[in-house]
Amino acid sequence: MAGDAPLLLREDGADGVTVLTLNRPAARNSLSLVMLETLENAFAAIGEDARVRCLVLAANGPVFSAGHDLKEITAHRQDPDGGRAFYDRAMSTCARVMQAITALPQPVIAAVQGVATAAGCQLVATCDLAVAAEDARFATPGVDIGLFCTTPSVPLARAVPRKAAMEMLLTGEMVDAPTALRIGLVNRVVPGPLVMETALGLARHIAARSALTVRTGKRAFYAQIEQPLAEAYAQAACVMTENLMAHDAAEGIGAFVAKRKPVWEDR
Amino acid sequence: MAGDAPLLLREDGADGVTVLTLNRPAARNSLSLVMLETLENAFAAIGEDARVRCLVLAANGPVFSAGHDLKEITAHRQDPDGGRAFYDRAMSTCARVMQAITALPQPVIAAVQGVATAAGCQLVATCDLAVAAEDARFATPGVDIGLFCTTPSVPLARAVPRKAAMEMLLTGEMVDAPTALRIGLVNRVVPGPLVMETALGLARHIAARSALTVRTGKRAFYAQIEQPLAEAYAQAACVMTENLMAHDAAEGIGAFVAKRKPVWEDR
Amino acid sequence: MAGDAPLLLREDGADGVTVLTLNRPAARNSLSLVMLETLENAFAAIGEDARVRCLVLAANGPVFSAGHDLKEITAHRQDPDGGRAFYDRAMSTCARVMQAITALPQPVIAAVQGVATAAGCQLVATCDLAVAAEDARFATPGVDIGLFCTTPSVPLARAVPRKAAMEMLLTGEMVDAPTALRIGLVNRVVPGPLVMETALGLARHIAARSALTVRTGKRAFYAQIEQPLAEAYAQAACVMTENLMAHDAAEGIGAFVAKRKPVWEDR
Repeated sequence: MAGDAPLLLREDGADGVTVLTLNRPAARNSLSLVMLETLENAFAAIGEDARVRCLVLAANGPVFSAGHDLKEITAHRQDPDGGRAFYDRAMSTCARVMQAITALPQPVIAAVQGVATAAGCQLVATCDLAVAAEDARFATPGVDIGLFCTTPSVPLARAVPRKAAMEMLLTGEMVDAPTALRIGLVNRVVPGPLVMETALGLARHIAARSALTVRTGKRAFYAQIEQPLAEAYAQAACVMTENLMAHDAAEGIGAFVAKRKPVWEDR
Repeated sequence: MAGDAPLLLREDGADGVTVLTLNRPAARNSLSLVMLETLENAFAAIGEDARVRCLVLAANGPVFSAGHDLKEITAHRQDPDGGRAFYDRAMSTCARVMQAITALPQPVIAAVQGVATAAGCQLVATCDLAVAAEDARFATPGVDIGLFCTTPSVPLARAVPRKAAMEMLLTGEMVDAPTALRIGLVNRVVPGPLVMETALGLARHIAARSALTVRTGKRAFYAQIEQPLAEAYAQAACVMTENLMAHDAAEGIGAFVAKRKPVWEDR
Repeated sequence: MAGDAPLLLREDGADGVTVLTLNRPAARNSLSLVMLETLENAFAAIGEDARVRCLVLAANGPVFSAGHDLKEITAHRQDPDGGRAFYDRAMSTCARVMQAITALPQPVIAAVQGVATAAGCQLVATCDLAVAAEDARFATPGVDIGLFCTTPSVPLARAVPRKAAMEMLLTGEMVDAPTALRIGLVNRVVPGPLVMETALGLARHIAARSALTVRTGKRAFYAQIEQPLAEAYAQAACVMTENLMAHDAAEGIGAFVAKRKPVWEDR
């Protein structure tokens, strides 16, 4: 029965690529509290799993994710506090899940096969990279139901130009995949049947690099981008020196100079 | 007589959309001190007027706005202080007017029918959304007259990629409407006769949403975008919970789940 | 002999445009420590040279710059400290060189005739403007050799959308010139033989403007972009008033109003 199917599927490839698949298609992969907690736990486990070198976030069904579970939200209006404690918990958990993607040592690639709306669109904006099907669409339509997509605006405003973000947020209208590519919300648009293949191709490419190098770089990227230029450079120069002192840089640069294939440390 | 015509026209629609029209076409809608003060007063009044749910900023004549009034600036060189007090007042007022647009509870949509230069281009960059005529053009040409467009650079650099902003600022050259769309300075480019219709269409769409939701979201957007990621998320999650506790979210989500039309509180 | 050729060529034009040319084509114009120090000294000299009003940064050979000198880096692994002191010095110098471009009073235009990778791509991202040949290509491929392009990510993430930067950094793949234009890494793409002509055209255009105005504006641009909106506006308004009180603004605005050609002060 559908009720027994796991909300989230995890498949670990031998190539260091793990695929997490949202598996609540009948509910449009909506982010109920338990789905959010399941994602949070999955990211925590993957963050400590050295075998995982790159992560693909995918979804089953025609919808990538429709965001928060509105039936669940409506049901909690009957709580003695009108739902406040639940809403606070759901929103805090959602914010932690999104930040966990950014904080994860491994790069995360969204494989968007269908419609991604509200917190579902936020997932796409948050991932390090995103591949979209030609007929995928994106929206932050909270404004249509009296709930502005304020948390989705956090990564959206950092991914796309300000007026493009404002148009999505204020109108709630769907953005098609070519537009999403133009404004920077996704990296690649491909025919639907090629979404997973393309995302996996990117993931395998990254997974074949030094894990130390990739996680050093990802962490430093998100740190420096929040700093003033002088601080960003001071920090980045230190990171470069440490990176240079590590085995994998000696191996990688040495292999490049000697025109041979590098062998990374497996950690 | 032209001298008796109001500098700024205000038209309040029954649909919650107000149109402010710069009405100094013979002077290329330049932003004299009195024009800036008139705009400041208009924004202050609109900000407290709950009947206004979305604002369109338009202009009469072939020029949207040519920026500061250079004849006025030149005349004040004869002041005992060489103009310093006047320039200080004009620049401070201009900076307040621009920030008033961002701080306004209602979204502001620029309807750009013609050329927008210097502080006129700054108005476009500052508005939440912008619709431009196919033959509209944009420039920050202060560099040509010895006065770098430094205040226009503030919203410009936040709206478009850094090198695109620098090209406009350092060369002073005109950017056509398709380029303005590509770099993110405007949201829509349409044939000239459709500019107002398109801007009004967007405005009516937004005005039909919950005013509380729209103003909550606009305020939170500009607050979070200036914060580090963790602070932005902490604040955004709080805003979401408060938004969820409000009548309009209960109504909007309830209506969505029940597949009926929501009825917003009129405030 | 090649060994005697200067690493960096400087040509000062009578029109106020200076061209600096990376001249280590056999080594792919790699940024050895001595090349970095030569650049730092050149920028310091140019910064104090009032005759220089705009700078073009070009390169000889098929490669614009391949970034750090990997043979030099590998050789220093034999140092008693494993290279740490050298790496620290090279990375710190590189970070100073890049920040010197941003701090230089004169605008700097990259003329990219060929491949720009790693710190070579960083140079392009850092320059105020960039012109690229149709067949120029850009990459931050450090990830391929175990050394993530962390310092290049500092200006790259400030020039292009975040996901575009991440794609370059995580995959190391080449970006062609049209893509570089689309994401904002360069301002103009022209046929190869026109790169210098186009860069010089932009430089002469800027050099014909008031030097005071250009340096005031460039400095203010990079200052305000790091500040919150209210601080940015407060600072920008002050800069505008000071700019207005200067000779060149009086002359430029006066000439514009009187429809005559302005005569700038030569400083």
